[in-house]
Amino acid sequence: MSSARKILNISSGFQMHRGGYLPELDLAYESWGELNPARDNAVLLFTGLSPSAHATSSAEDPSPGWWEEMVGLGRAIDTRRFYVVCVNSLGSCFGSTGPATVDPRTGQPYRLDFPVLSIEDIAAASYEVVKALGILRLHSVVGASMGGMTALAFCTLYPKAADGLVTISSAARAEPFAIALRSLQREMIRSDPAWNGGNYDLADPPVLGMRLARKLGMISYRSAEEWQRRFGRERTAAEHDPGDSFGADFEVESYLEAHANKFIGRFDPNCYLYLSRAMDLFDVGEHSGCVATELGRSTVRRALVIGAESDFLFPIHQQEELAECLEHPEREVDFVSLPSIQGHDSFLVDMDRFRPAVAAYYDRS
Amino acid sequence: MSSARKILNISSGFQMHRGGYLPELDLAYESWGELNPARDNAVLLFTGLSPSAHATSSAEDPSPGWWEEMVGLGRAIDTRRFYVVCVNSLGSCFGSTGPATVDPRTGQPYRLDFPVLSIEDIAAASYEVVKALGILRLHSVVGASMGGMTALAFCTLYPKAADGLVTISSAARAEPFAIALRSLQREMIRSDPAWNGGNYDLADPPVLGMRLARKLGMISYRSAEEWQRRFGRERTAAEHDPGDSFGADFEVESYLEAHANKFIGRFDPNCYLYLSRAMDLFDVGEHSGCVATELGRSTVRRALVIGAESDFLFPIHQQEELAECLEHPEREVDFVSLPSIQGHDSFLVDMDRFRPAVAAYYDRS
Repeated sequence: MSSARKILNISSGFQMHRGGYLPELDLAYESWGELNPARDNAVLLFTGLSPSAHATSSAEDPSPGWWEEMVGLGRAIDTRRFYVVCVNSLGSCFGSTGPATVDPRTGQPYRLDFPVLSIEDIAAASYEVVKALGILRLHSVVGASMGGMTALAFCTLYPKAADGLVTISSAARAEPFAIALRSLQREMIRSDPAWNGGNYDLADPPVLGMRLARKLGMISYRSAEEWQRRFGRERTAAEHDPGDSFGADFEVESYLEAHANKFIGRFDPNCYLYLSRAMDLFDVGEHSGCVATELGRSTVRRALVIGAESDFLFPIHQQEELAECLEHPEREVDFVSLPSIQGHDSFLVDMDRFRPAVAAYYDRS
Repeated sequence: MSSARKILNISSGFQMHRGGYLPELDLAYESWGELNPARDNAVLLFTGLSPSAHATSSAEDPSPGWWEEMVGLGRAIDTRRFYVVCVNSLGSCFGSTGPATVDPRTGQPYRLDFPVLSIEDIAAASYEVVKALGILRLHSVVGASMGGMTALAFCTLYPKAADGLVTISSAARAEPFAIALRSLQREMIRSDPAWNGGNYDLADPPVLGMRLARKLGMISYRSAEEWQRRFGRERTAAEHDPGDSFGADFEVESYLEAHANKFIGRFDPNCYLYLSRAMDLFDVGEHSGCVATELGRSTVRRALVIGAESDFLFPIHQQEELAECLEHPEREVDFVSLPSIQGHDSFLVDMDRFRPAVAAYYDRS
């Protein structure tokens, strides 16, 4: 664990959104910059499914973060001006409590005894960090993908807690195509005999299932156009193992294999299952049946919704709908549709387009 | 086996496109209508990956075929006018020789000793049926999906064998996005311990892997828009099994489960692997490096290329490119782009659009 990671321990217990209770909670977070005397320059950053709280490098942890080019000194979210806080999502496995954490009541990891996880729980747990840091009203909440869902949940749960909202390649509710893809990823993990009903040996996790799930993830995170330009029908350099007539023939297959192997072992399979399902269950309009009504309660004054046109997991029409639902007489809403070809992952890789879009929001603040 | 199915046995052996040899060959086919005295009314129909030769019902086999609404008396491909022949693809498992067939040299099923299968082999084997039926020049070859690839391979291997060509939701070569999806489906099957390196017990096939592969197939065959209209966020009627916290929550999950269960047991897993990989390896331009050059050798006089705009497995830009590559001074080429929302499967379900498009071609013949 790097020295940049701080832990907030909540010993008073935590009530989960869909029922269930955690007797205590650890929340791992990192922060960059300084909270100003007026305490109005704090930006809360939510992550996608798989990252830790290490969004960007710092003196304490100089390793590159998952949004290194976006957050930092002189960057789009400028840590000379803003106090940026990123929390490892509740249910994840990078310091925050999740299914891989030991349940203090039993002395054993929660595993599948962890209560149903909702995006609202991730938002609520992150709010504990905000309160503990003495922040009364956030300058803004920002998140991409699952992080954008969490930002929306945050604004409905705590309508007065944030002045601004930036969602990127996100959604107000999961649609069935994305549900189908994530459900299948979960089934891949659960179908691996090594998963063992969630009770896998940590030394022998369900790597086959995790590899398949990660590959489907990669397919759903990028785009056909990008891969056609990047790989075409290029063959792998390596010869087939003569005993494996179905090994990789094409570069695109080797690329998926290399990426999947990096992921396996880094992420706990049960945590993956819980976070993935939380996205499927998410629907801002759950209570009133209307996304716009729910978002109307928020006192956010400026909102920015960004999407990538080639994203088919969180498609651009969902960004447009979200921007429409955010419309409110007291609120300025911008919608930016970017012609990036890297699909859902564009916000991580097409920095030439995403950086200016985010910077325009923060420069005006 | 129904009495509609005929078998052509080729005892003289068969040389495979990428090397390897089959000492003998069975080819299952069905036919409808009558060959006219001029022998110029024969239509050869190629199938997608999974269907048998039973394209439509007949007196001998009244069960509905896989393209029941397209082929038959008074239908778009009218069997009162045309003699329609459909061959079960070489490598499949519905009567034609494939990896599940017993190798006469060993008395054991081929399994992974079956030579590498190419789309060209499927075309060449089907040509044996054409010759055996005494057909000198076909009125047309027609195929959708893998069947369209086979029709293209047929026209390049036998440039004088067909007067017309109809391809539907097909491609002149596999692109990396489709390769990635199919490669992952194959890995799902191969990752199932029951697959056992291809040597599975027929009584205990890799059903987990086949279920996953079929679900990914369904996802890639339909479209997000269709599922949003059809399922939205509708929940399953059934309650969760209390012991299975990751069971189906949403209708779309139940739908995939029901479809996958229908497929499992009906299709041999090794055959699936071979046919799937044959699609990845397919590239009409393989020899000269140019699709247009290869297709230019064909004496097809009228070609029709149909695609569905929502198809992301065989996307519409590939249909357009194919139509352009088919352009030739001696040939009439039509390209029809249909606004169907059912994705790649549209040709099987959006009959209100596909029937007239195909009928227009055959009505003019």
